Amino acid sequence: VSVALNGLPDVQAGLEGRGVELDEVGVAGLSLPVQVAEPDGLQSTVASAEFTVALRPDVRGTHMSRFVELLTEAPALDAATLAATTRRARSRLDADRARLIVSFPLFVERIAPTTGMRAPLRYDASFEVIDDESTTSVWLGVDVPITSLCPCSKEIADYGAHSQRGRVRVQARPAELGALSLLDLFAAADTAGSAPVYPLLKRPDERAVTMTAYDNPQFVEDIARDVAVAMRDDECVAEFFVEVENQESIHDHQAIARVRWARP
Amino acid sequence: VSVALNGLPDVQAGLEGRGVELDEVGVAGLSLPVQVAEPDGLQSTVASAEFTVALRPDVRGTHMSRFVELLTEAPALDAATLAATTRRARSRLDADRARLIVSFPLFVERIAPTTGMRAPLRYDASFEVIDDESTTSVWLGVDVPITSLCPCSKEIADYGAHSQRGRVRVQARPAELGALSLLDLFAAADTAGSAPVYPLLKRPDERAVTMTAYDNPQFVEDIARDVAVAMRDDECVAEFFVEVENQESIHDHQAIARVRWARP
Amino acid sequence: VSVALNGLPDVQAGLEGRGVELDEVGVAGLSLPVQVAEPDGLQSTVASAEFTVALRPDVRGTHMSRFVELLTEAPALDAATLAATTRRARSRLDADRARLIVSFPLFVERIAPTTGMRAPLRYDASFEVIDDESTTSVWLGVDVPITSLCPCSKEIADYGAHSQRGRVRVQARPAELGALSLLDLFAAADTAGSAPVYPLLKRPDERAVTMTAYDNPQFVEDIARDVAVAMRDDECVAEFFVEVENQESIHDHQAIARVRWARP
Amino acid sequence: VSVALNGLPDVQAGLEGRGVELDEVGVAGLSLPVQVAEPDGLQSTVASAEFTVALRPDVRGTHMSRFVELLTEAPALDAATLAATTRRARSRLDADRARLIVSFPLFVERIAPTTGMRAPLRYDASFEVIDDESTTSVWLGVDVPITSLCPCSKEIADYGAHSQRGRVRVQARPAELGALSLLDLFAAADTAGSAPVYPLLKRPDERAVTMTAYDNPQFVEDIARDVAVAMRDDECVAEFFVEVENQESIHDHQAIARVRWARP
Repeated sequence: VSVALNGLPDVQAGLEGRGVELDEVGVAGLSLPVQVAEPDGLQSTVASAEFTVALRPDVRGTHMSRFVELLTEAPALDAATLAATTRRARSRLDADRARLIVSFPLFVERIAPTTGMRAPLRYDASFEVIDDESTTSVWLGVDVPITSLCPCSKEIADYGAHSQRGRVRVQARPAELGALSLLDLFAAADTAGSAPVYPLLKRPDERAVTMTAYDNPQFVEDIARDVAVAMRDDECVAEFFVEVENQESIHDHQAIARVRWARP
Repeated sequence: VSVALNGLPDVQAGLEGRGVELDEVGVAGLSLPVQVAEPDGLQSTVASAEFTVALRPDVRGTHMSRFVELLTEAPALDAATLAATTRRARSRLDADRARLIVSFPLFVERIAPTTGMRAPLRYDASFEVIDDESTTSVWLGVDVPITSLCPCSKEIADYGAHSQRGRVRVQARPAELGALSLLDLFAAADTAGSAPVYPLLKRPDERAVTMTAYDNPQFVEDIARDVAVAMRDDECVAEFFVEVENQESIHDHQAIARVRWARP
Repeated sequence: VSVALNGLPDVQAGLEGRGVELDEVGVAGLSLPVQVAEPDGLQSTVASAEFTVALRPDVRGTHMSRFVELLTEAPALDAATLAATTRRARSRLDADRARLIVSFPLFVERIAPTTGMRAPLRYDASFEVIDDESTTSVWLGVDVPITSLCPCSKEIADYGAHSQRGRVRVQARPAELGALSLLDLFAAADTAGSAPVYPLLKRPDERAVTMTAYDNPQFVEDIARDVAVAMRDDECVAEFFVEVENQESIHDHQAIARVRWARP
Repeated sequence: VSVALNGLPDVQAGLEGRGVELDEVGVAGLSLPVQVAEPDGLQSTVASAEFTVALRPDVRGTHMSRFVELLTEAPALDAATLAATTRRARSRLDADRARLIVSFPLFVERIAPTTGMRAPLRYDASFEVIDDESTTSVWLGVDVPITSLCPCSKEIADYGAHSQRGRVRVQARPAELGALSLLDLFAAADTAGSAPVYPLLKRPDERAVTMTAYDNPQFVEDIARDVAVAMRDDECVAEFFVEVENQESIHDHQAIARVRWARP
């Protein structure tokens, strides 16, 4: 057991003989108030963070308080800031790799299709940074509510068609840092269902949304593919992962689709 | 600090001077394997229990291990068994009141409307016992998935209508112990939506369910009232609480309705 | 079916013959960005709202979009603002009662006991307004993490004592609107465990917190009573509810205590 | 749109031109009653299943009802049964890959260390099958509650040491199907904390557990490494993943450690 500057034993720095390198050691579920810098401005929100480093076989423990210090020092969050914070963790904790995930709700102003009434729509977003000696990768992520209407149900029934709420999750790694925004991912997800979701609809709006969804039936597979095509066609995207979940209204389980892709 | 039979101090029995009677003290989130005795047979399932007693102002703490002992001793669960277990807790822990809530999933065999194919449908159920010196009340509860189709959307759109998954929660106190079963409550909830929910549907079934839902549009208010009428009309029900939640497919929030009633 | 100004049928206003008054009808799980006005300043955070009105037996449905409109119009949240918003809902929706619950995380700056290092500590807070023709009640609520160390374990073991994370939940109705702040409730909860919880502790701080907790063993019952005494002794509190939950480290279930009280 | 035997259009079989292969398409969150065959006998429990297949670029949709049919046909669950079910899905749905995850709570009889009193302890378990043309891999998983006591806190404080509940998650792929049981993984996880967790402890047991934990301080890193060593030393294990989460009692966030390893 070595002794640190403050005169107390440093148990974490002690000898370690099991010969096991740990891939990740750190903190999770740390909640903190943040500001997120997006192209359309700065949003104040509340984040949950997971922050880890790799731990070499010969070191017993990491210094968990460093993660909290580094996170509370970070200014307004964007991909570049968080990449720098992650690199700092790797350096200060003398580790081969570091990883940071910060997740938070964001809001876009949603305009009702007929009356034009406005209200904030929530989506969930995240940044994930993976940093090692050779590269720093940053992934952007969104989780967006949508409506889906079942093409099979519409085709086989004489009238009606079941619809349901769904979630579209997109994670993408831009070819260059800053080439993609969370709003870009939101837009790809938001337009892939049978209709978007609205916090505020008056009757004429509800009429429009109902008919839009009926006119655009989408299987969970269709939604995943439409988002995949949008990502593939965007030169700024180097790699992506899409997950769609339809909360089927005729079942008590979900229909899901997933696709992962990297630009060749 | 008094000393118990095993020679260790009994800190819980110590003097208490704050003059605060506690309404409930005990354990929560205790998971255990159980068998539930329903009219249609015995089901093996996994329960979560909360078990508490009132604590008099002059006693510092209760003996938490007793709750676990009593629960693991209980045979197949039904209203009468759990009422007895709760009374035993009140007596052994020398308390003025005791309360027990046991929650668990159950399954009914669901038959697809056209093909007749069978698969188990899950619903969640509970028993709540409230026991004091004068009475032992037992509440039965269910939480059942349903489909709802919006009457407004159907009326105002030229075609289509949005539908979504919902949950119907019913809690009822029978006039006499044993006069109501969990299956009775399930049946009232299950038939109050626009259509029931099925784990397994082939195409001809999906056609039938889609058209059934379109033929039976139900607001969240309608569902709550239909369950309320069914409960009110059942002479065995002394008191009930209904909560319906529609997971609106055009919004990312829920529409809810609640009603509480006691037979005059 | 009556016809509204926009030329579309108003299905909600239709005839209703079941004779069931609903206690609450409205929206739940609506997420929105808010600012909360506390004595120590304005905080930006993200809220989840539930907003309902009672529905008379002769009306089929309420107008759900009104709740969303009213919430998005509300300025910085405090008890008075939300009371006004709730009264407005009752009036606009022509209802006998209205109820609003808004929940959100807040942060306090937490100072480590020895090094004085600072980091934000999250707690969860809420306002609940219940409004009818005669009165408007506002309840404030907090949900605060604490550490508890078991007095029994300390007493009976030759060394050591198990400790665990807990949550203290306090809801209080002030005698007069504005007489209590969320921070007042936070302070009562935060000081009732064996030690407070900190986001950031260096070794000398961890030493201090460890010994503080060992010096202040508290049963779940003790914590509930200490908060109850603090509330009872505060003349501004007309009514309160306290719930404490210890996430026992020697078990996989919780120990809980609850007390409800109204000034005579 | 092709027409199936039942005379209804088969929309899922329709032409698909987007050129996107989906990695996984299927159902998630399907709840069903199951029996799990473990070396110590058959347990009745409640499972949640996710079941997917890959979808070729030229097919629009899969037939979701097949997954439900296959799952409800499965007899008592073990690795071999579920491997067969997964291969059947791949074959019936004419897919290149299939994947099945079934998760459920299980119970072991836990004996209190001093009094010998018995009560069931819950842990969560899972089987994951990944099947393609060349191989069928089966992973076993457990998620086990433990107590951890902080070595740093013990060392630097004059008395006491903070402890907390934790979770140890182990997933392992046996070298040969059937070479490992869920109970083997449970045992590795259960013994790696500072002390095991018990549903039922009388005072003499609590004394023993308190002192055992104090005598065995374990960092989150230590726990992960001890499980890793146990897995590495077991010739039956071809590959494993360990995740440990300490629900720190002095913080409101978690400390975590992860390690992934494959036998060279």
